[in-house]
Amino acid sequence: MNASEFRRRGKEMVDYVANYMEGIEGRQVYPDVEPGYLRPLIPAAAPQEPDTFEDIINDVEKIIMPGVTHWHSPYFFAYFPTASSYPAMLADMLCGAIGCIGFSWAASPACTELETVMMDWLGKMLELPKAFLNEKAGEGGGVIQGSASEATLVALLAARTKVIHRLQAASPELTQAAIMEKLVAYSSDQAHSSVERAGLIGGVKLKAIPSDGNFAMRASALQEALERDKAAGLIPFFMVATLGTTTCCSFDNLLEVGPICNKEDIWLHVDAAYAGSAFICPEFRHLLNGVEFADSFNFNPHKWLLVNFDCSAMWVKKRTDLTGAFRLDPTYLKHSHQDSGLITDYRHWQIPLGRRFRSLKMWFVFRMYGVKGLQAYIRKHVQLSHEFESLVRQDPRFEICVEVILGLVCFRLKGSNKVNEALLQRINSAKKIHLVPCHLRDKFVLRFAICSRTVESAHVQRAWEHIKELAADVLRAERD
Amino acid sequence: MNASEFRRRGKEMVDYVANYMEGIEGRQVYPDVEPGYLRPLIPAAAPQEPDTFEDIINDVEKIIMPGVTHWHSPYFFAYFPTASSYPAMLADMLCGAIGCIGFSWAASPACTELETVMMDWLGKMLELPKAFLNEKAGEGGGVIQGSASEATLVALLAARTKVIHRLQAASPELTQAAIMEKLVAYSSDQAHSSVERAGLIGGVKLKAIPSDGNFAMRASALQEALERDKAAGLIPFFMVATLGTTTCCSFDNLLEVGPICNKEDIWLHVDAAYAGSAFICPEFRHLLNGVEFADSFNFNPHKWLLVNFDCSAMWVKKRTDLTGAFRLDPTYLKHSHQDSGLITDYRHWQIPLGRRFRSLKMWFVFRMYGVKGLQAYIRKHVQLSHEFESLVRQDPRFEICVEVILGLVCFRLKGSNKVNEALLQRINSAKKIHLVPCHLRDKFVLRFAICSRTVESAHVQRAWEHIKELAADVLRAERD
Repeated sequence: MNASEFRRRGKEMVDYVANYMEGIEGRQVYPDVEPGYLRPLIPAAAPQEPDTFEDIINDVEKIIMPGVTHWHSPYFFAYFPTASSYPAMLADMLCGAIGCIGFSWAASPACTELETVMMDWLGKMLELPKAFLNEKAGEGGGVIQGSASEATLVALLAARTKVIHRLQAASPELTQAAIMEKLVAYSSDQAHSSVERAGLIGGVKLKAIPSDGNFAMRASALQEALERDKAAGLIPFFMVATLGTTTCCSFDNLLEVGPICNKEDIWLHVDAAYAGSAFICPEFRHLLNGVEFADSFNFNPHKWLLVNFDCSAMWVKKRTDLTGAFRLDPTYLKHSHQDSGLITDYRHWQIPLGRRFRSLKMWFVFRMYGVKGLQAYIRKHVQLSHEFESLVRQDPRFEICVEVILGLVCFRLKGSNKVNEALLQRINSAKKIHLVPCHLRDKFVLRFAICSRTVESAHVQRAWEHIKELAADVLRAERD
Repeated sequence: MNASEFRRRGKEMVDYVANYMEGIEGRQVYPDVEPGYLRPLIPAAAPQEPDTFEDIINDVEKIIMPGVTHWHSPYFFAYFPTASSYPAMLADMLCGAIGCIGFSWAASPACTELETVMMDWLGKMLELPKAFLNEKAGEGGGVIQGSASEATLVALLAARTKVIHRLQAASPELTQAAIMEKLVAYSSDQAHSSVERAGLIGGVKLKAIPSDGNFAMRASALQEALERDKAAGLIPFFMVATLGTTTCCSFDNLLEVGPICNKEDIWLHVDAAYAGSAFICPEFRHLLNGVEFADSFNFNPHKWLLVNFDCSAMWVKKRTDLTGAFRLDPTYLKHSHQDSGLITDYRHWQIPLGRRFRSLKMWFVFRMYGVKGLQAYIRKHVQLSHEFESLVRQDPRFEICVEVILGLVCFRLKGSNKVNEALLQRINSAKKIHLVPCHLRDKFVLRFAICSRTVESAHVQRAWEHIKELAADVLRAERD
């Protein structure tokens, strides 16, 4: 395919994409296919001779679309939102064309420098403490990671290196293994599974602190764990506090746990994967209070800030904590500026070596929406979740399980888990809307997350009517 | 921005991309900017009100392009190639629009199932042993990772879990830390820096096996290390063999080291990040002989197989080795099919949770080029590197440092490192072409890698004329 063929096919693809987005409401949100549906539909091996573009684009409708869960349908209320916006898609086209691999400053200076400045822009939108910003040549700075899981892992590894160095400086006879055996990391029992995974990968213990009645980590439970573990000879070194948990969007009490971490020399990583986007609105910024105690902070613009996946924004107070954990400099990656102190080689900040020019997406989105446009978008989602909440509250058969703060409503039928499991099963079998459940303590709970960029009040209303009908069926079936 | 605005701007962007690719030869391959160039060119904070698309696209030429290293210029001969093709860009547009996050089968069945089948297609192109394929419901299978670094890390972590379980099954009193202290991984002294990094992250020792005169790992050096380490009480558990090293495209001797690893119960991971693409050509397939001894194999279609970054292809012989290392199942990610044995939840195969619909790029590229088209592309690059090699060999001032097997030529002026450093410095200051160096033992060497999709004999000839001129200058300056 040459450039002129690409001009033609690229424009057809732009129309295909626009048609898909415009017509998405008409597609069934969750597919009908069974496991293994795709393999029989396509050849067992790649063709020797080229297929035509027409063949392929026809197969997209015939083979791919029947198996797609339409995350951007206004009837998709599952998991958390994943971002989708036209400016981000335009930026990604440019990113693909430039196609640079920005592992070092020299590998493409614009790729590194735009990222640094975009992370400052975003940090300012959130009113992050200045210590996290890169401007003014401070010690902090931001980096785009692929996912919040990677950010948590990177923070844990940096904390691990730091504590090992500190303890070995004091007691040079200590081996790394002897220290690692005693290291213990913490999160609330509501933290995302990726936190437990980071502990597994890092080869350290991870303990879950029991959350309170609002599913928040509090000082007392943390203190208790620390005292018990220190008495047992363990070394607390790392804490993940979550702002906006995946289960129910609860918030750990940063103002309580932050000072404890600082006092105990525990690296505090704040994971606000979903909720972080909301902090650009002044009325939600208080939820971030206490971030000043953190060593690292992360959230996903690719969830709720209209920057298509992947774009996970991570800041640290001390860049050298990250680079110290990972830095290796083979000759083929050296360049003349690298020891000047003026530049950033982002490969030292992350797990992979290669990286795309992802900051273009931030630049396009921030400029084409403006801060006010982004704030309006967040506010609309929060308003829709409260609208759903009030519909649920008006129906005495249902209960709201956790205070609704942002765009997630946790609700259930009053009654057994079994009846709620039956309700969810009917919802997801009907495939008019799509939800996923969670467990809150021993309760099976339905999560209604405002997700799509194009979801409106009418969709929420229709979803609720549909849920009510299915609930009536379930309750009738139970009585019979 | 609504769909109709996107139709217009998207088509403008298609033209911008096509213009960029068509005109890339006219752009200086390496930028003139100094560190910090970008920040003064843009505002210190995001705009409150939206900017127009015209403003942004104008700024791309004014602010971004002057700082871009043009990886797809036919005068770019640095690092290794990074893939760029129009079919992959079209597929990425579709990927952005669908915008699903394929962490589980249910999260978007097509995303998971196309990946599984594409990895089988690709495995067959390489004539990988059947044990690595997913079809026929065997125990193996393939997954797309973001980078070879991640693949190495994932393999190391799986191997670590496996050996810990094995030793604890035999001696339940052994703690994880006690085992980890004794674990030792190996690679050749020519392996990529990401291997050392995987060892750091995994918290295990990594030892470099001295390579032979052709920069290849051989049985004798490995045996020696194993005997020494076992005598010292260490536990060898993981080996990375490289096919096509980053420094000089040398090949570890798989047929020698493979059987040793199998006999010693050492997980063998084969990293062919760059060279792997060439194995789709029957005349290069012999370079992969011995992969039958491996537990995992990885290469990067995003380097040399025209699938734009990121797309790193990894296969394992036993899927459960990976999933056993990472599996965690919170309620919000559970779905009804997950324990059926019929489906793949790729989140258990990788470090991050989220993942894009990357197999679309493979599908578009494999179909629009056909296997023959891809083979022709590889062969053209190899032919061009031999053309450059023969030019170098005709000039008695220069020497070829390593046998040229694929698309990389390692060469230098006969003489001191200083004179070669001076030559490289002149080349990269002139900015007509772009190269990076490497060290082979104590020699400073220039790497000439055939990279661009559009590089032709004429570009190689011009590059060589240019290098010769600069070499004459360097040698004259040295004499004076």
